[in-house]
Amino acid sequence: MAEVAAPSRSHWRFRRGLGGEALAEVLGTFTLVLLGCGSVAVAVAALPESGRQAAEFGAANWLIIIWGWGFGVVFGVYVAGGISGAHINPAVTLAFAVRRSFPWYKVVPYWLAQFIGAFLAAALVYAVYVPAIEAFNASAGLPRSESLSTFSIFATYPADYFGGSWWGPLLDQIVGTAVLVGLICALIDKRNMAPASNIGPFLIGMVVTVIGLTFGPNAGYAINPARDFGPRVWTYLTGWGDLAFPGSHEWFGFYFWIPIVGPLVGGVIGAVVYDLFIGQVLTERSEPETGRVPE
Amino acid sequence: MAEVAAPSRSHWRFRRGLGGEALAEVLGTFTLVLLGCGSVAVAVAALPESGRQAAEFGAANWLIIIWGWGFGVVFGVYVAGGISGAHINPAVTLAFAVRRSFPWYKVVPYWLAQFIGAFLAAALVYAVYVPAIEAFNASAGLPRSESLSTFSIFATYPADYFGGSWWGPLLDQIVGTAVLVGLICALIDKRNMAPASNIGPFLIGMVVTVIGLTFGPNAGYAINPARDFGPRVWTYLTGWGDLAFPGSHEWFGFYFWIPIVGPLVGGVIGAVVYDLFIGQVLTERSEPETGRVPE
Amino acid sequence: MAEVAAPSRSHWRFRRGLGGEALAEVLGTFTLVLLGCGSVAVAVAALPESGRQAAEFGAANWLIIIWGWGFGVVFGVYVAGGISGAHINPAVTLAFAVRRSFPWYKVVPYWLAQFIGAFLAAALVYAVYVPAIEAFNASAGLPRSESLSTFSIFATYPADYFGGSWWGPLLDQIVGTAVLVGLICALIDKRNMAPASNIGPFLIGMVVTVIGLTFGPNAGYAINPARDFGPRVWTYLTGWGDLAFPGSHEWFGFYFWIPIVGPLVGGVIGAVVYDLFIGQVLTERSEPETGRVPE
Amino acid sequence: MAEVAAPSRSHWRFRRGLGGEALAEVLGTFTLVLLGCGSVAVAVAALPESGRQAAEFGAANWLIIIWGWGFGVVFGVYVAGGISGAHINPAVTLAFAVRRSFPWYKVVPYWLAQFIGAFLAAALVYAVYVPAIEAFNASAGLPRSESLSTFSIFATYPADYFGGSWWGPLLDQIVGTAVLVGLICALIDKRNMAPASNIGPFLIGMVVTVIGLTFGPNAGYAINPARDFGPRVWTYLTGWGDLAFPGSHEWFGFYFWIPIVGPLVGGVIGAVVYDLFIGQVLTERSEPETGRVPE
Repeated sequence: MAEVAAPSRSHWRFRRGLGGEALAEVLGTFTLVLLGCGSVAVAVAALPESGRQAAEFGAANWLIIIWGWGFGVVFGVYVAGGISGAHINPAVTLAFAVRRSFPWYKVVPYWLAQFIGAFLAAALVYAVYVPAIEAFNASAGLPRSESLSTFSIFATYPADYFGGSWWGPLLDQIVGTAVLVGLICALIDKRNMAPASNIGPFLIGMVVTVIGLTFGPNAGYAINPARDFGPRVWTYLTGWGDLAFPGSHEWFGFYFWIPIVGPLVGGVIGAVVYDLFIGQVLTERSEPETGRVPE
Repeated sequence: MAEVAAPSRSHWRFRRGLGGEALAEVLGTFTLVLLGCGSVAVAVAALPESGRQAAEFGAANWLIIIWGWGFGVVFGVYVAGGISGAHINPAVTLAFAVRRSFPWYKVVPYWLAQFIGAFLAAALVYAVYVPAIEAFNASAGLPRSESLSTFSIFATYPADYFGGSWWGPLLDQIVGTAVLVGLICALIDKRNMAPASNIGPFLIGMVVTVIGLTFGPNAGYAINPARDFGPRVWTYLTGWGDLAFPGSHEWFGFYFWIPIVGPLVGGVIGAVVYDLFIGQVLTERSEPETGRVPE
Repeated sequence: MAEVAAPSRSHWRFRRGLGGEALAEVLGTFTLVLLGCGSVAVAVAALPESGRQAAEFGAANWLIIIWGWGFGVVFGVYVAGGISGAHINPAVTLAFAVRRSFPWYKVVPYWLAQFIGAFLAAALVYAVYVPAIEAFNASAGLPRSESLSTFSIFATYPADYFGGSWWGPLLDQIVGTAVLVGLICALIDKRNMAPASNIGPFLIGMVVTVIGLTFGPNAGYAINPARDFGPRVWTYLTGWGDLAFPGSHEWFGFYFWIPIVGPLVGGVIGAVVYDLFIGQVLTERSEPETGRVPE
Repeated sequence: MAEVAAPSRSHWRFRRGLGGEALAEVLGTFTLVLLGCGSVAVAVAALPESGRQAAEFGAANWLIIIWGWGFGVVFGVYVAGGISGAHINPAVTLAFAVRRSFPWYKVVPYWLAQFIGAFLAAALVYAVYVPAIEAFNASAGLPRSESLSTFSIFATYPADYFGGSWWGPLLDQIVGTAVLVGLICALIDKRNMAPASNIGPFLIGMVVTVIGLTFGPNAGYAINPARDFGPRVWTYLTGWGDLAFPGSHEWFGFYFWIPIVGPLVGGVIGAVVYDLFIGQVLTERSEPETGRVPE
C-alpha cells in the first residue's frame, strides 16, 4: 500500500503503539455510529411514508433500525479489529479492564477515541440528512428543539410507558449491555465455540441486532456510552437543546446519564456472569487433574 | 481469566463434570429464553404501534419474533456449546439419549437446568417489561388474567382456527420439533456437510427462524418444553393464572401439556427419520465393502 | 449411530449406491418443500391479519415467504449434500447432466425421488394446515376449488398482469432458473471463490431468497419442477381441482407445464452462460501456457 | 467441464489476460444489476399491494430492495471474484488504481465491461417486467415518460426533500461510496480481520445492504456509476426520455452526472481514509522496529 506521507519518528512510534489503537477506535466507532444513526434517519425521516411522529412507526421501520445498527457493529469491528481489538464501546473497554486484563492505562484513551469517533459520525449524518430533517420538522410543524423524532436519529430517550421513572430505563441499559458483553465473551473464547475464519465480527454485530429486537424500544438500546453521548453533544450544539441535556423544563435532558452509567455497570455484570457460569468451568477443565486440586 | 474465587475441592470436582454442564445449560437456556421472550415483548407491547390485541399484529411484527428467537438460539448455543453441547432444549436431550448415545443419567439433570434457565429468563424479561405490560393492559382495558397478548410474551397458546382441538396443536409441535432435531442431526454430522469454523450454531439458530416462518403461528412454536414451561410457571405465579394452567373456566390452561409432550415425541421422530434416510446410508458408506456385507 | 435394523445384503448394496442417493434426494426435497410451502401458509392463512385475499398481502408477508423458501433450500442442501450432492431440483439435475458430467442414467431416478419428496411434504403441510385453510376459506366465503389463495400455499400461478399470456411466465421461469443454476455453478467452482468450511449451502439458499426478492411475484418462482408439480398433484387430489390442472373452464389449470419446462430450459442456459463467461476462462488459465495453444 | 468450442489461439490469449477479466466483469455486473433492479421491480410494481406511487411505499418495501441489492452484490462477487477480483463498480476500479496498485491500463476496459453488464441486465429486467410496468402505468394513469415509479426500477433520482439542489445528493453519493470502498478495503486486508473461507463476498454484499439501510432513500444509493448509467441509457432508449437525461423541461434529466461523479470521488476518499486510520498503522506495525525508523 502506498504511503500517503513519510511519518516522522515520533509520529511513527505513536502509531505503532497506543496511538494506532486510538486511531482504529476512532474509525471503528465512527463506522458504527455513521451506519447506526443513518439507519434511524432512514426509518424516521427519509422513507416516503415516514413523515410523521415516532409514535406512529411500526415493526417494519424497526427492522430497518435493528439491521442498520447490527451491521454497523459488524463493520466497525472489521475496520478496527486487527489493531485495537475493536471495542468501539466504553462499556466493553471497562469490562475487559475489569475481567480480561486489558491495561487500565489504555481505558481513558480508548474512551476518548470512541467518543470522538461517535461525535464525528453524528456530524456527518447531520450533514447528509439536514435536508430530510428540515423537511420532516416543517411537515410536522415543530421547531427542532421540540422534535423528539429527529432528535432520536442521534441519541436515545425512554419509552412513554416508563412514565418518567429512571429505574426502568436504567435496568434496561444494564440488562442489554450485560447481554452484549456476556455474548462477546462467549464469541471470543477460543476454549468455547468461538467462530473461526474471522467470522466473529459478523456474529458480534448480530448480538446487537438481537438486542434491538428484544430490548430496543424500551430506551433506544444505546448499550454504549460513546454511541449515545457523542451524538447527544452534537444535537445539543445544533439546536435540539433541552432534549439533549437539562435546560429549562424538559425531562428528557436529565436522562443523559442513564445510557452512560447503565452500560458501564451492565458490561461488567455480563462478563462476570459469563465467567461464573462458563469461563471458570472452562479454566478448570483445561487444567490437569493432579496439578491443581487443593490438597 | 481471573478467578472470582478459589473453589473448594468438591466444588471443583462438581464443575469439571456434570455440574459444569448443568451450569452451561442454565446459562444457554437463559440466553435463549431471554432473547426470545424479549422479542415477543417488543412485537406485542413495546413498539409504538403495538398497543393493541394480538389478533391485529401482522407480518412485520412476526419478523421481529422469528429473528429474535432464531438469534436467541444462535447465542444460547455459542454460550453453552463448548461445555454441555448446548442442548438447551429437553427434546434435544431426549432425542440424543435415544439416538446419539447421550448418557441417560444426565437427562434429568439437563432437563432441570434447562427449566431453571428458562424460568430465570422469564423473571428478568418480566422485570424489564413490567411497565410496558402494565401500560398495554391499561390501554386494552383488560386485567392481567385475561390478557392473552401479554401472556403470549412468555408462553404459547394455539391459534383460533384449531377451535379448541388438541390434535392440531399437538401435530404442529411434533412436526416442528421433528424438523428442529432432524436438521440439528444433519448440521452436526461430520460425515455429511456439517459447517466448520464453528459456524454451526449460527445455522442451528436459523433452523428455529425458519420453523417460526413456517409453523410458528399455529401454536407459538414452543418446540422446546423448557422454553414454554419455565415462563409458563412464571406467569402462573405473577397473575396470568388460568391462562397458564387449568383453573376455573379457561380452556387455555389445559393446553400446557402439549408443548411438553409434542416436542419430546417429535424430537425423537426427527432423529429417527434423519437416520433412516441419511444417517444409516452414511454409516454403510463409511465401512469397507468386504468387511461388512452379511455372507 | 445405532442401527435401526440390520439391513439385508441387497438392501445394503442399494443404499450404498443410487438407492442411498435417492433417499437423500427424497428427504432433501421434502425438507425444502415442507419449509417453503409452510412459509406460504403462514403468510397467506395463519398470521392473524392474513384472513383475506392474496391480492391484499404486502411486502412484509412477502419477506416471510422469501426467507422461508431460502432457508428451506439451505437446510435441504445440508440434509442431502453429503450423499447425493443435494440437487433437490430436477432442473439442477438436468443442467449437471448436460454440463457437469452428472451420469445420465441417474437423471430419472433423481427426478422421481425429488417428486416424491415434494409430494410427501405437501401432504404434511396439508395435515398441519388444514384447520387454517378451512378457516380461511370459510371467512372468505369461497369453496376450496375457487380459493386461489389457499391453492398458492402449495403450487404457483402467474400474476394478473401477464393477462393470461404464457410467454411472460415462461420467460420468468427461464430467467429465474438460469440465475439459480448459474450461481450454483459459481458457488461450487473451487477454481473461483467457492465458499469453504461447508458454508456453501447457506449461500445457495440465499440465491433462492434473492430470486424471490427479484422475480418471485411474477409467477411464484417455482424454478424447480418437483417443488411445483409434487404439491400441485396433491392439491388436485384434495379438492382444488381446476386450479391445479385443466378441467372445465379454468385457465390456471393449463398453466401447469410452465414451471416444468421453464426451469428445465433455464437451468441449462444458466450453466452454459456461466461456462462461456467464467468456466472456460478458468479452465484455460489453469492449463500451462506451452502445452495447450493450438499451433 | 466440457468445452463449448475449441477457441482459436488469439481468442485463447485474449481470455487468459484482460479479455477474461472483462468477461468476468460483464457477468458479475450483470448479476448485480439483474438482481438489484429486479428487487426494485418487485417492490414497486409486482407485489399485489404495490400498484401505486413510489411516495406511498414503506419500510417493508424498502427491506425488499436492500436485501435484493445486497445479495446482488454478494453473488456478483462470487461470479467474478476468481478472475477479475470482482470490482463490478467503476468507483472500486478507480480507487484500487489510485490506492491499491491496480494497473491504470485496465481501468477503462473494466469500466466498459461494467457498463455493458449493467446495460444488458437492464434489458433483461425490462423483458421480464414489461407486462408489470405496463399494468402499473395503466393503473396510475401515467404515460411512461412521466412515471417516476417505473423509472426507479432502473435508475436513481433524488428525494423530494433535497428540493432540486445538487449538493445534497452529491454529498450523499460521496459518503455512501466512501463507506463502500473503505469497508471493502477493510474486508480484503489480510493484515486486519479479513474473513477467510471465501466468506468475504457475503460480507461485501452486506456492506451494500447496510448502505441501503442508512443512506438509500436520499438518492437511491447508486454508489456505482455503471449500475446507474447502464440502466439509465436503457430507459432513455425505451421511452422514459426526460426522466433519464436532459430533454425539454425535466429537472431529473440533469441529475444523471451525480451518480457518476459522486461515486468516483467518494470511492477514492474511502480508500484514503482507511489507509490514514488503519492501513498505514498496519504497514508500520508489520515492519521490524530497527530497520525502519528514520535516524
